Amino acid sequence: MDTRPIGVFDSGVGGIIVFSEIIKKLPNENIIYLGDTARLPYGTKSKETIIEYTKQAINFLIKQNVKAIVIACGTATSLSWKEVKDLYDLPIVGIIKPTVESLEPSIRTIGVIGTSGTIKSNAWENEIKSIYPDTTVISKACPILAQMAEDGWTENDIAKLVIKEYLNTFKNTNIEKLILGCTHYPLFTKIIKTELDGNIEIIDTGERCAKFLEGLLTEKKLINNEEPEYKFYLTDTESKFLEIANKILKGIYIIDREHIKPVKIG
Amino acid sequence: MDTRPIGVFDSGVGGIIVFSEIIKKLPNENIIYLGDTARLPYGTKSKETIIEYTKQAINFLIKQNVKAIVIACGTATSLSWKEVKDLYDLPIVGIIKPTVESLEPSIRTIGVIGTSGTIKSNAWENEIKSIYPDTTVISKACPILAQMAEDGWTENDIAKLVIKEYLNTFKNTNIEKLILGCTHYPLFTKIIKTELDGNIEIIDTGERCAKFLEGLLTEKKLINNEEPEYKFYLTDTESKFLEIANKILKGIYIIDREHIKPVKIG
Repeated sequence: MDTRPIGVFDSGVGGIIVFSEIIKKLPNENIIYLGDTARLPYGTKSKETIIEYTKQAINFLIKQNVKAIVIACGTATSLSWKEVKDLYDLPIVGIIKPTVESLEPSIRTIGVIGTSGTIKSNAWENEIKSIYPDTTVISKACPILAQMAEDGWTENDIAKLVIKEYLNTFKNTNIEKLILGCTHYPLFTKIIKTELDGNIEIIDTGERCAKFLEGLLTEKKLINNEEPEYKFYLTDTESKFLEIANKILKGIYIIDREHIKPVKIG
Repeated sequence: MDTRPIGVFDSGVGGIIVFSEIIKKLPNENIIYLGDTARLPYGTKSKETIIEYTKQAINFLIKQNVKAIVIACGTATSLSWKEVKDLYDLPIVGIIKPTVESLEPSIRTIGVIGTSGTIKSNAWENEIKSIYPDTTVISKACPILAQMAEDGWTENDIAKLVIKEYLNTFKNTNIEKLILGCTHYPLFTKIIKTELDGNIEIIDTGERCAKFLEGLLTEKKLINNEEPEYKFYLTDTESKFLEIANKILKGIYIIDREHIKPVKIG
């Protein structure tokens, strides 16, 4: 038994979707959540900047004595996971590998949506092709969407219009699945479903990431069995984090304002 | 004659509109422009965070030996100008005071649009009321707009829809003028004009800020008369800064990629 917490990191509130899947799968794990709200969004920033921000987040979480880290952010995974995964003496899990490894080998054509940084990096396509070289990947960058999610604009007319515009890319393609390559995007699932052909399966990375983490902790004998504690650190506390996080966690867990601590990591 | 440069600071590219007005009014001044693109947008972040970012920007510019600083950012002016203006041994100009002082005393009702941080701070309303206590101020926060400007979404259908939605606030009011309280917003002027009653004058802060600066430098005998040099520093170089800046500066000046230097200020 290892009572040390798991560190979960995102630019903002999107990682709470991953957090929610982790507490469902691993209900006895202590978790420290870090949202870099003072510097979000990550999706339009450079690889160098995102690697630096990710390292700062990892260093902060390591100081909190975590036993594993989940980069619950599509952009940070795409631009920095490969660069940081072997630099530290603990497992670092991103959202791409667990998701891609869970795909059925029969898949022929798949869509990916993500931030500009994510799509430009080709990280999803590279990972998919490394396992399924014959699969066609159609990618579409969706700037603004993550920021809209942080602002709580996930079900209004503007969100509808923006998503309709982005998903046009997949019209007349034969994608079988659509990967939501940014952890903020499941907040738009309702609209995405209405805009997509009903046969297309929407793949949210959170559940797959949590399952991967469960396997990893079990294999490495790092599981905890006691009553868990959750802590939330934000680099800026002005955001709508609390409101949106609790909407995501409805029925699973409630974050109180007192649970949230401000922190500087830069 | 004082050949030291003027420092101009914004979260990103919005301040280039102010820069363009300064080089028109003060064509012999050396200018150092700083865009904090690694941490934009500022509009949704807390007062504490914005004060810290502003101080870091000022410290960087002071190290470059500037003779005056223009906070060419609506959010940074609103949340930090009063806190920082007397801390340093050089003039620090924001966008609010120069704009408000230029208003006609006859004005009865005025609209202000700005970021969430700006509108929440009441900085515009407080400044207007301190000079024109009987003027009615109607304010509207426009989240996402500054980020949309940074992404180059200033003339598409989504921009139209978003702005229409925001400007609904001013329907059936009798505002005589509308202040664009964020330096990014003049990029949307074309759409704003079509959505607003034709009698309403749109007030862009850049020209008023440049005029104020001209008066200040003249009064303090800080004017330069030589051929100027412009330098541009960005905290992240991945953005669409160059493309958008050159669109703003069309016919006035061209920024080459080599003019832009990466810098860390955090």
